Amino acid sequence: MSIDRDVAALRERMLELSALNAAKDLMAWDQMTYMPPGGGPARGAHGAVIGRLMHERMVDPGLRRLLERLRTAGDALEPLVRDEVTVLARDVELAARYPSALVAEVAAHGSTCFDAWRVARERNDFGVVATLLERSLELTQRLAACHPAAAHPADPFIDAADEGMSVARLEPLFKELRDALLPMVDAVAERGEPQAVLPVHRSGEAQLALALRFAVDLGYDVGRGRQDLAPHPFAIRIGHGDVRITSRVAPTDLQEALFSTIHEAGHALYEQGLSDALDGTALASGVSAGVHESQSRLFENLVARSRAFWHYALPRVQAAFPELAHLDVEAAYRAVNRVRRSLIRTDADELTYNLHVIVRFDLELELLAGNLSVADLPEAWAERYRSDLGVVPNGAADGVLQDLHWFGGAIPGHFQGYTIGNVLSVAIFDAARSALGDLDDQIAAGDFAPLRAWLREHVHAHGRRYPPLELAQRVTGAPLRVEPYLGYLRAKYLDDGAPTASAA
Amino acid sequence: MSIDRDVAALRERMLELSALNAAKDLMAWDQMTYMPPGGGPARGAHGAVIGRLMHERMVDPGLRRLLERLRTAGDALEPLVRDEVTVLARDVELAARYPSALVAEVAAHGSTCFDAWRVARERNDFGVVATLLERSLELTQRLAACHPAAAHPADPFIDAADEGMSVARLEPLFKELRDALLPMVDAVAERGEPQAVLPVHRSGEAQLALALRFAVDLGYDVGRGRQDLAPHPFAIRIGHGDVRITSRVAPTDLQEALFSTIHEAGHALYEQGLSDALDGTALASGVSAGVHESQSRLFENLVARSRAFWHYALPRVQAAFPELAHLDVEAAYRAVNRVRRSLIRTDADELTYNLHVIVRFDLELELLAGNLSVADLPEAWAERYRSDLGVVPNGAADGVLQDLHWFGGAIPGHFQGYTIGNVLSVAIFDAARSALGDLDDQIAAGDFAPLRAWLREHVHAHGRRYPPLELAQRVTGAPLRVEPYLGYLRAKYLDDGAPTASAA
Repeated sequence: MSIDRDVAALRERMLELSALNAAKDLMAWDQMTYMPPGGGPARGAHGAVIGRLMHERMVDPGLRRLLERLRTAGDALEPLVRDEVTVLARDVELAARYPSALVAEVAAHGSTCFDAWRVARERNDFGVVATLLERSLELTQRLAACHPAAAHPADPFIDAADEGMSVARLEPLFKELRDALLPMVDAVAERGEPQAVLPVHRSGEAQLALALRFAVDLGYDVGRGRQDLAPHPFAIRIGHGDVRITSRVAPTDLQEALFSTIHEAGHALYEQGLSDALDGTALASGVSAGVHESQSRLFENLVARSRAFWHYALPRVQAAFPELAHLDVEAAYRAVNRVRRSLIRTDADELTYNLHVIVRFDLELELLAGNLSVADLPEAWAERYRSDLGVVPNGAADGVLQDLHWFGGAIPGHFQGYTIGNVLSVAIFDAARSALGDLDDQIAAGDFAPLRAWLREHVHAHGRRYPPLELAQRVTGAPLRVEPYLGYLRAKYLDDGAPTASAA
Repeated sequence: MSIDRDVAALRERMLELSALNAAKDLMAWDQMTYMPPGGGPARGAHGAVIGRLMHERMVDPGLRRLLERLRTAGDALEPLVRDEVTVLARDVELAARYPSALVAEVAAHGSTCFDAWRVARERNDFGVVATLLERSLELTQRLAACHPAAAHPADPFIDAADEGMSVARLEPLFKELRDALLPMVDAVAERGEPQAVLPVHRSGEAQLALALRFAVDLGYDVGRGRQDLAPHPFAIRIGHGDVRITSRVAPTDLQEALFSTIHEAGHALYEQGLSDALDGTALASGVSAGVHESQSRLFENLVARSRAFWHYALPRVQAAFPELAHLDVEAAYRAVNRVRRSLIRTDADELTYNLHVIVRFDLELELLAGNLSVADLPEAWAERYRSDLGVVPNGAADGVLQDLHWFGGAIPGHFQGYTIGNVLSVAIFDAARSALGDLDDQIAAGDFAPLRAWLREHVHAHGRRYPPLELAQRVTGAPLRVEPYLGYLRAKYLDDGAPTASAA
């Protein structure tokens, strides 16, 4: 059977790609967790080589011919293989647009840039990275030029991360959101300041252990994962049985450990929930940045920042941290939902978070379109923070240098995924609530299994089988809309009012 | 300049090989330290792919032609490149003997075998791995058959790890050693039992921290390395600026943490001491298993089990572990040098250690020569332990399953390197003492810089530039001989006698 032979050849090529991808991801995990400083230069060079080897395999004409043969086989293929061929052909088409040398240049530059960014942030000095960032912009424009038909230079990068999305589709969504959020933040920020932290005295280790315990209760399988510290938390899939999370700890505020862990556990639950049948195929990952973020934000915000969750969580928090014995559920709920105009995206509350994202998205578009120079970026950043968030960075470290996204070799930060994820998280949670009924009671009782099973069945298991907008439509029964998300925020922050009332 | 172009092409090929090798080594480090259990199956498959990609590159005809052109360029090359071409041509010749498919088979089998070995050891059941080990033996014999001219089937494997060595050369050395050691152990073991441990009550973390502090004093650079826990300690070079060590801790005996760490730091000092000029070349690693072990054993035994070292170490040990305040230098010296017939190689004292090695070496030769079956191995092991060490394993876990060496896909355990290393460590240390004069005073004062600088200049810096036997001759001024090593053991354990006298 020549189809069987072709499918076997596809499996062999995918095994090679998976192995290289696992190497690349393990190198990245290690670089962010345990690698000694001296390992930096070689890691950069080695990562660039692995990236080039992957790219060479993706653009190999033999793979194209194989995919073409499989595509014409149509219904003779198992549905899973058919879907894989579709997705992989799209990946190949994208990879083939970029010359291997340019890909290697971006990767090598990315490592230099990343190391410089760390130094720049430490020194609070944008000057350390300015020239490198100019080169990133130039490289990005060369990547963009590989898509001559794109309506906006950012479109190919947006579509690669969030298939089906574009500047033209996102701008009205983001405008609607921003127009609604600005007055909401105004209204809420005029109220008194609530208790803002969960003040603890015990070690980071105790905080991490409690946070991991919550992640495990939510369904994170530590037999197929692990938790480590990292300055910029992330989740990463090294393999089907190895999906790791990292956490950040603040010495005296338990929130940092709890919510960074639960956020990353949300990402990890997605990857751990992939159907076993996808293992080793091109379908074996989350489908888009936005859908991925919908899962992390669903667990972080809709589950772990709900009143119901704190009925379950507070006794466990207090058993581990007796210094929080004075809190009641309402006070804890308020503490973890305080709204505050602030400088740092990752510390932002639900209400202001998307304003941080939209600032970045807009600035990125201007950079790529050539309407903003790298030299003017810090000032443009400060200006937008003043107008949208009412605060001004003290320097580059809490301004334009705070996120690593622009310092990995090319500009696209894929920030849009965060806001798509927020919007989608509410739509998906609403669908889950309709299906599961007494979801709040389940959460309050610490019974997360029904929610997890529902998400697994409707979102996680499919991996990349359905394009993200199609998946969202299937799960939520509606196209992506801002209004239900705004409705959720209004109900939580304006109508209820509790989160921002003083906790005194 | 066509030579320049060829050298540049060599550099590019070496970068690719270095990147793949770094990926393979990082995967191995991770598997032994942090990888969750679920990561096992994919890690095995992925490691096999990376190994195959490396092998394909090594046997690529283009590389052969390139090396041939460079070899004929002779004196037109820089000496370093000339040496690299010689060493790499030897590596290529070796790799080319093995079909890629066989290499991949061994790698894939190795991962299965390793996982099964862990289970077998836990269950104390040789049966779990017996069939797999039979397959390892068969694979090894297929590898050996790729060297039809070898005098003994083990010779190619011995030569690959310890160039210049063979069964014919090692058997008389090992016979001389065994004949001398058996009566020495008899004589010493009749004496009273000395205090055998450094009993401590504090956490593994405190033990590790102290052990690392000693490693750093010895010269281990943690800016280019790090320490982690591992069940089977090892040192590994991920890159020129990233040489890691792992340690093992026993809850109530400080010796385990101290000596496992100092041993691995000895390996790491070798790799960290490579000349910068070797970075990225085929010369950038220790030259052989034996020379590598000479460095770990030099620091573990000749430095850290000396009286002089304990003058430096004891106050620091007691500051960290007040429960050891009752010890004086002599008692500590005795505790860390007690001689005891025992079952476990890695716990063995200097005097019995080589007997453990020679048992393994002999059994391995019999397996490879077809004179011993896998089914009879546990019994043959017990028999040799009874005759040579006077003890009999309770089961497979403290018998034939104790070392991982035979459970990585092929049989050659490269055990000979341990004994070559022991013998060489004394010869090298004697040469250092002749050059540095008051070495004991320096060690007692904690001034390890002169020794380290001498080792760096004479051993570490050269990497693989000189074949191991040539390097040993250059450093020690003599061929490899057993007698000076035996003289050291006699002086320490028979003439002095202190280590085994009762500490009461």
